[in-house]
Amino acid sequence: MTNNITPLKDIASELLQKDNYLILTHRHPDGDTLGSAFALCRALRKLDKNARVVCSDVIPDSFDFLYDKMDEIIFEPDYIISVDIANPQLLGEKYEHLADRIDICIDHHHSNNVVASLRYVDGDTAANCEIIYDLLKLMEVEFDKDIAACLYTGISTDTGCFKFSNTTPRSHKIAAELMEYGFDLEKINYRMFEEKTVSRVLLESLIMKNMEYHFFGRCCVAKVLRNELEKTGAKEDELDGLTGLPRQIKGVEVGVLIREQVDSGCRISVRTKAPTDASEICANFGGGGHVRAAGCTIDLPIDEAKEELLKVIAKVLGED
Amino acid sequence: MTNNITPLKDIASELLQKDNYLILTHRHPDGDTLGSAFALCRALRKLDKNARVVCSDVIPDSFDFLYDKMDEIIFEPDYIISVDIANPQLLGEKYEHLADRIDICIDHHHSNNVVASLRYVDGDTAANCEIIYDLLKLMEVEFDKDIAACLYTGISTDTGCFKFSNTTPRSHKIAAELMEYGFDLEKINYRMFEEKTVSRVLLESLIMKNMEYHFFGRCCVAKVLRNELEKTGAKEDELDGLTGLPRQIKGVEVGVLIREQVDSGCRISVRTKAPTDASEICANFGGGGHVRAAGCTIDLPIDEAKEELLKVIAKVLGED
Repeated sequence: MTNNITPLKDIASELLQKDNYLILTHRHPDGDTLGSAFALCRALRKLDKNARVVCSDVIPDSFDFLYDKMDEIIFEPDYIISVDIANPQLLGEKYEHLADRIDICIDHHHSNNVVASLRYVDGDTAANCEIIYDLLKLMEVEFDKDIAACLYTGISTDTGCFKFSNTTPRSHKIAAELMEYGFDLEKINYRMFEEKTVSRVLLESLIMKNMEYHFFGRCCVAKVLRNELEKTGAKEDELDGLTGLPRQIKGVEVGVLIREQVDSGCRISVRTKAPTDASEICANFGGGGHVRAAGCTIDLPIDEAKEELLKVIAKVLGED
Repeated sequence: MTNNITPLKDIASELLQKDNYLILTHRHPDGDTLGSAFALCRALRKLDKNARVVCSDVIPDSFDFLYDKMDEIIFEPDYIISVDIANPQLLGEKYEHLADRIDICIDHHHSNNVVASLRYVDGDTAANCEIIYDLLKLMEVEFDKDIAACLYTGISTDTGCFKFSNTTPRSHKIAAELMEYGFDLEKINYRMFEEKTVSRVLLESLIMKNMEYHFFGRCCVAKVLRNELEKTGAKEDELDGLTGLPRQIKGVEVGVLIREQVDSGCRISVRTKAPTDASEICANFGGGGHVRAAGCTIDLPIDEAKEELLKVIAKVLGED
């Protein structure tokens, strides 16, 4: 049963009654799952309950402020809560075995299919931390600087620092209220949005160096060759966060990243601006995805793959 | 007299009484000066007054939505208003001659020294558009989608989309209210923060390619050679927006951009993270600036200039 929705106030009173909470976050953790988990954990501990946060993957040290000054505490969990986890696979290898033992699921993904006794899912909320904000208010927890920093981090992360279309007036209103607790907003946003690792810089540089323009600048293609990638020392999945770069160029309607694969063939990421349909382009090669972001693989050497792709893009842009 | 401050409500009633307004924006216009000017211009026109906005420089087309559907109107100005202009030099070549004819100055720079009959300067406000928001409220102008988009653009621009430490709870509260008018928030922020020109990409790529690390990654130096810059086709001042790149690297405390100059010597930009003092480093070479951002010139070939600079940075970081 994954369509039961429990009123948030019932979840609040359940949390006030029970104890010994294990809070699960999703694999490849981000600011929203971690912000949700640590805000809730801090709140429960304030109410003298045992609570701790776990994650299948190592938590990157850029999030260390979220759990600053929180002691490790040992206890046998009685109650399991998942936050910002849309499906059981996202529990990750280490916690997948708990998929059918979740008591409370709190999430903001329309697609949520986590099974739990109590579920609150609101897919129209920009960040899961906005739901946790409501929950803590219902629990009448006294907010402080650390809880505010956790909640702010989630809202900021999931709205791209209030930049994306999922941002609502309410996201801003909650941020305004949280700011009054005086956490270091600039430091948090610096870590979430500005700071780059050395390997990230090498990858960005590699992509930019290889950008080429087609159809009067309406299409930008960046190739990543295997041997060039290896020279950077970066892992291929680090490129996942950079697939949008070619589309960022002014005037570009279709941005393409082509990665040469180890064995043979190429992995293609297509990003478009309205009204161009990225999934339509990728469908020609057996791929798919969303309207503005799609992918496919083409089993050809990189330059031939590019030519095949350009033929399709030419048609879509009416430049054939 | 540049220390007179007029209550904003007096400026509001003055604006309601007079007519035929010329609104001045600063040279190298940004979202805050233009957002302030066009919001005010739209408001005055709504009150059936003549108003138009001018700028010494060409307004980049990424701001076209600010003056969307506004007709050009011809009239002889009786009244001159400056917005977001901290000093007369910022009027630019074309409007410098109006420096002693300004009737109303509205600004948010502590350093403001514009002479005007009526002045409202609040240096603690994140964006000048927050002042214009208050002014329009006092004038009882009915807000609409276009005015809201102009005001939002200024607030978003000057706070780095709510990322910088100048962001206040009030910035968020105003943004929340403005959003209710339903402008395309994502499109505005995309244009202000994501979109890159081809030459910008070439420059970023050039800087990243030339980054080198010193003192266990605590210092990152990027050299820009004259012949490499020329190959990109970009102008040197386009580098001004990219001086922060070396500091963005994780672990870097001092980021340096060294630009080889046409005749001889080098121009140095130093950016630091707390607590390192950038101006202290630059003072060694007769330069100066702020605690986190400073500059100097060193009259040596680029590699020698770099070595001299590294000696000073070593001392400051305690790595000598």
